[in-house]
Amino acid sequence: MRIDILTVLPEMIESPLNCSILKRAQAKGLVEICVHNLRDYTTNRHRKVDDYPFGGEAGMVMMVEPVDRAIADLKSQRHYDEVIFTSPDGATFDQPMANSLSMLENMIILCGHYKGVDWRIREHLVTREISIGDYVLTGGEIPAVVIADAVVRLIPGAIGDEQSALSDSFQDNLLAPPVYTRPADYNGWRVPDILLSGHEAKIAEWRHDQAMERTRRLRPDLLNE
Amino acid sequence: MRIDILTVLPEMIESPLNCSILKRAQAKGLVEICVHNLRDYTTNRHRKVDDYPFGGEAGMVMMVEPVDRAIADLKSQRHYDEVIFTSPDGATFDQPMANSLSMLENMIILCGHYKGVDWRIREHLVTREISIGDYVLTGGEIPAVVIADAVVRLIPGAIGDEQSALSDSFQDNLLAPPVYTRPADYNGWRVPDILLSGHEAKIAEWRHDQAMERTRRLRPDLLNE
Repeated sequence: MRIDILTVLPEMIESPLNCSILKRAQAKGLVEICVHNLRDYTTNRHRKVDDYPFGGEAGMVMMVEPVDRAIADLKSQRHYDEVIFTSPDGATFDQPMANSLSMLENMIILCGHYKGVDWRIREHLVTREISIGDYVLTGGEIPAVVIADAVVRLIPGAIGDEQSALSDSFQDNLLAPPVYTRPADYNGWRVPDILLSGHEAKIAEWRHDQAMERTRRLRPDLLNE
Repeated sequence: MRIDILTVLPEMIESPLNCSILKRAQAKGLVEICVHNLRDYTTNRHRKVDDYPFGGEAGMVMMVEPVDRAIADLKSQRHYDEVIFTSPDGATFDQPMANSLSMLENMIILCGHYKGVDWRIREHLVTREISIGDYVLTGGEIPAVVIADAVVRLIPGAIGDEQSALSDSFQDNLLAPPVYTRPADYNGWRVPDILLSGHEAKIAEWRHDQAMERTRRLRPDLLNE
């Protein structure tokens, strides 16, 4: 898989893209993540990527040209399955969407910034708009990292213990059951006896019951899907 | 405002916390963001922060002790309004929650990692669990940045043009209307004539209609809230 991220702030996402699972997945050759500075695709003297909005609104708007040039340049080198734009009004990102993106070969993620991007980019260049949630962030950079992280960890081999991903929340539409580690007693806070019992079948049953109970109480919507 | 982030991967969030709005807000003294390495609060020789789960599940679990010690150390220095844990089964983060967090004085954000944190941390030390969305990430570090970014940009003075935040998506339960910038014609892709007309009242009406139409089509749920 290859992920190309287009941004006006490449330095913002440097550290999260080069840590932990994303770092290891790149080192193993499972994914190539390339960050491109949109200023490198400007033709004006000041490498300006934004301008005032038509109609006199507040804020600045990202211009069509650098984005168009960057995408055209990438597309001249290989086929892209999707050109994703991270936007609060896109389709809400969730685990099934992460699963489906994890099957793609190549994708571009365009990070919005300032007041937004010129609408013509969304109309003509973007193939998919994704929102990571109903809140406003400074730019699309962090959402791009969220998408990359959620997707890359699903590529077989990306996380050490595949069983661990399978028992994560959402993969079976249940919240994860409680987990505990040593010590069994921490200042009087005790681990449930069942987990110390060694009865595998009973432990599995307890976990399922806990997951069901928590899902019913906290996220009943997941059970109706 | 002060935000203390507890993590096993402080280097992961270095660049996003020191860029753009978060950088400026810290430089202006509007917020102090302190990242703490949980390994600094271990008492064992290898600075180990995780251990195997009781009951034989896959994955590693973050231990109570370093988290308890870190939180106790911070609480001995000042009062904290919330100890937030970023978790896929927490309450879903949204703009009203960001608004309410932006009124707090001091908060701790604990980033989970590995298979999760020992349940006793969530039972006894955490006051609020927040999920940034229904998907699984490698850890709570990126969610902590999401929360910090969404909250800090709401502090008066954090973003240059306050009008710009007010017209963002969600602040009025409407998606934002399309925005355009120069050139008015890009390879035949044209800006709507109304925005070039100079009729302020008509432009405002067009924007409202566009916002309503897009919200009705893409996110009708927002209109029923």
